Amino acid sequence: MATIPSHSLLLPNPVNLQTAHSFPLKPHLPQSTMITFPTRSSPAMAISRTEGASVSPRVEPESYGITTAEDIRRRDREAKESKRLRDTWRKIQGEDDWAGLMDPMDPVLRSELIRYGEMAQACYDAFDFDPFSKYCGSCRFTRKKFFDSLGIFDSGYEVARYLYATSNINLPNFFSKSRWSKVWSKNANWMGYVAVSDDDEAKRRRLGRRDIAIAWRGTVTQLEWIADLKDFLKPVSGNGFRCPDPTVKAESGFLDLYTDKDTTCNFSKFSAREQVLTEVKRLVERYGDEEDDLSITVTGHSLGGALAVLSAYDVAEMGLNRTRGGKVVPVTAFTYGGPRVGNIRFKERMEELGVKVLRVVNEHDVVPKSPGLFLNERAPHALKKLAGGLPWCYCHVGEKLALDHQNSPFLKSSVDLSTAHNLEALLHLLDGYHGKGQRFVLSSGRDPALVNKASDFLKDHFMVPPNWRQDANKGMVRNTEGRWIQPDRIRAEDHHAPDIHHLLTQLQYPSQLL
Amino acid sequence: MATIPSHSLLLPNPVNLQTAHSFPLKPHLPQSTMITFPTRSSPAMAISRTEGASVSPRVEPESYGITTAEDIRRRDREAKESKRLRDTWRKIQGEDDWAGLMDPMDPVLRSELIRYGEMAQACYDAFDFDPFSKYCGSCRFTRKKFFDSLGIFDSGYEVARYLYATSNINLPNFFSKSRWSKVWSKNANWMGYVAVSDDDEAKRRRLGRRDIAIAWRGTVTQLEWIADLKDFLKPVSGNGFRCPDPTVKAESGFLDLYTDKDTTCNFSKFSAREQVLTEVKRLVERYGDEEDDLSITVTGHSLGGALAVLSAYDVAEMGLNRTRGGKVVPVTAFTYGGPRVGNIRFKERMEELGVKVLRVVNEHDVVPKSPGLFLNERAPHALKKLAGGLPWCYCHVGEKLALDHQNSPFLKSSVDLSTAHNLEALLHLLDGYHGKGQRFVLSSGRDPALVNKASDFLKDHFMVPPNWRQDANKGMVRNTEGRWIQPDRIRAEDHHAPDIHHLLTQLQYPSQLL
Repeated sequence: MATIPSHSLLLPNPVNLQTAHSFPLKPHLPQSTMITFPTRSSPAMAISRTEGASVSPRVEPESYGITTAEDIRRRDREAKESKRLRDTWRKIQGEDDWAGLMDPMDPVLRSELIRYGEMAQACYDAFDFDPFSKYCGSCRFTRKKFFDSLGIFDSGYEVARYLYATSNINLPNFFSKSRWSKVWSKNANWMGYVAVSDDDEAKRRRLGRRDIAIAWRGTVTQLEWIADLKDFLKPVSGNGFRCPDPTVKAESGFLDLYTDKDTTCNFSKFSAREQVLTEVKRLVERYGDEEDDLSITVTGHSLGGALAVLSAYDVAEMGLNRTRGGKVVPVTAFTYGGPRVGNIRFKERMEELGVKVLRVVNEHDVVPKSPGLFLNERAPHALKKLAGGLPWCYCHVGEKLALDHQNSPFLKSSVDLSTAHNLEALLHLLDGYHGKGQRFVLSSGRDPALVNKASDFLKDHFMVPPNWRQDANKGMVRNTEGRWIQPDRIRAEDHHAPDIHHLLTQLQYPSQLL
Repeated sequence: MATIPSHSLLLPNPVNLQTAHSFPLKPHLPQSTMITFPTRSSPAMAISRTEGASVSPRVEPESYGITTAEDIRRRDREAKESKRLRDTWRKIQGEDDWAGLMDPMDPVLRSELIRYGEMAQACYDAFDFDPFSKYCGSCRFTRKKFFDSLGIFDSGYEVARYLYATSNINLPNFFSKSRWSKVWSKNANWMGYVAVSDDDEAKRRRLGRRDIAIAWRGTVTQLEWIADLKDFLKPVSGNGFRCPDPTVKAESGFLDLYTDKDTTCNFSKFSAREQVLTEVKRLVERYGDEEDDLSITVTGHSLGGALAVLSAYDVAEMGLNRTRGGKVVPVTAFTYGGPRVGNIRFKERMEELGVKVLRVVNEHDVVPKSPGLFLNERAPHALKKLAGGLPWCYCHVGEKLALDHQNSPFLKSSVDLSTAHNLEALLHLLDGYHGKGQRFVLSSGRDPALVNKASDFLKDHFMVPPNWRQDANKGMVRNTEGRWIQPDRIRAEDHHAPDIHHLLTQLQYPSQLL
């Protein structure tokens, strides 16, 4: 049963979200006596909470040092929820293919899906998209302060490695490039990170295991990269993957993005694949023999979802999810608005390897319908069999959690393609989802204003500006000379790819990697 | 003679402006050992200083509390310069129509033109242009913290009153309106302020007098309001002005903007005219009998320049520039990129009244050529005489200081109309101007990066992002509930128009005002 308490109320009336108070028992907070501006309306919306709600969205550096009422409530929720996650984490990670957990929606699964979705969202919030920044295409924060810089002070994770890819591949509309000539790298883009849950005792107890999390960046608004895809499946074995079966195929564009490198570039002289595999190997070796169990969770939105599926498959195919003691580490991919990645054999091979994939999608999003819009797993069986050998028969992997933005009373019903693809909106939809046909009720009260960070999706009467996430003065600051500058940002030791040659040679099939 | 020292160097090479060090004697500051990012280039540009430079541009709240090297140099310059301004302020204010002060350019005049230009620029920096803000069209800061909020800590002025105009006039493209329904005012826009120089002893000594400054806001980018002008001159006397001569005429759109009111609106129930006149009257009465002399200086850019001319004229025509003791207070308008305002009789009447106008223009800007592009003061004498009675014969007032953006090696040569009209660019051009045919040399080293605050005017190789002035997260902040909101901003007591009925009735010609 979905745990919707009977007192739940969702009344997204035409009032500013700022007047939404989260304590149903205290609907009428006293108005500030200092502020007498006439547009301050009285509270008119109560957002109820169910148990097992998500962590609070703490994603902005501006919130440094503020312990909010939301923080306190979140801690309370987490305390209640932690026991369940500790006991059920293997099921939450998909041990039983999430049977019985999605309809009605399990509150712990919902909470975890939002948490991993926020780890994917962090890739957007941290990415420098500004073509007029000389750091365009890089991560705006140093690795060690990654979560803190985003205002996520209690993530419970430490970033172990940043991931880069070379932009010298055939997805010109995916990569961000600076308009300036002097830039941090001409050929690399930051693509995400590998993080590992830290030693904090409370967090370990909550998770129930040590977690290695991999997050891949996708695209927020521009979907042109879909058109760039060659719509061509090629055998993964030709790209250095361990798989000996040439009928296991994946989209060539994703494979290129994952495996290409640029030996002249400090950041992408190793492929994204080499970067992630060596780091997973290192972390599994380091933590695999601990008393705690271990899990590997890969997350990504959009094109990042495709990389999540590819890399989850790759880790398992390489056997990196086995500890020296022989324990098998479960590998799970949570993807959000992800496209199809490979063919039916690719899907079958992932199932053989026990890699679990849960795909969260908005039913109105076209990206999960790509590539293979016309020939995919939904085609009649006979046709699929016939087309199985053809290069363009794509197939989704794993389980789907289908959401519908038209069920949320907060969101505009009719929006453009990139808006329907928005990740923050998916997290909002998750928060309100309780099962098929169930009424939309926010579980955690996760701030709906976050939806508009990089979209124009909230209904106008909530009065949240569209695309409001932006840096003060585009990151320009005054230096000690009194001049406005783009500050030097990146410390080389945090960003340059460490030399991983020695790690690559230690992989089980080094010849396929090098 | 222009005071360009022989060691002056201006080498705007293709390097980031941030590497420009301002001490020619210390061109090679040690690089930070923390920052090893490879794009940090060595200093390659030295900007020399001449005496009599402008105050430093301190226009951003982010600079709170930072005393920069620029601050120290500025204080040194100001100390040297203050003696001259104290002795010559009447000439700087136009007593002799700036004869001999513009070619070669007098450094004190240059500095004062930049200073008053920055007071006009403050109207843009403080204005809420965002249609998705419920405060769109208002001033973002409270009156008492106006300059501080802009990072201008040593302005030496206190804002005495905010000025508003009703948007219910026929200049639809001039006014900013919120897209939301709940807004601070449906019918008013903030238009500027009246400030008065404060009691700080050093500042008083520097200025040589008490100054009442009036700054009017114009438009930064959108020039559509020019097309809205009816291109129709009407007698000022019909609009409540004291002038008994019906042949003294001004552009009807400017007159409407200046004199219209909306009795249903708290902010514009008195016209901009009534607001400014009553405040000037109050301040002249308060300070007119001090030992110090008094001056009235009106400043404005673009349409704000037109309001500056109109209100300077009006103050003098109303006789508000006479103290109770009978002293005449000089009235000066410094305008930047201002259009023509009235006809030849209007110009003559201003001259009779002794109002001084100095117009700073970029030769490539079309606004100062409007209205009256075809029939103006440059037409042959006979034609002018013939057309004098026609409604569309416009005439500029006062002296012109013509600058040319193509003389600055920092600026793009070919730009669109609104860029050529940019106020920050004019201030930059002032800083480099030394007289007709003189080489462009920055006098104060005023940060060229400021030019791109709201334009794309700097050459690309300086690597300053275009339009970089923006608020963090469009002003959204997290409240104590952890939610992202547009904070309530305006305290009514600072913004609502005070009741000035009693002041209006005290004016010399109350029947014409009420």
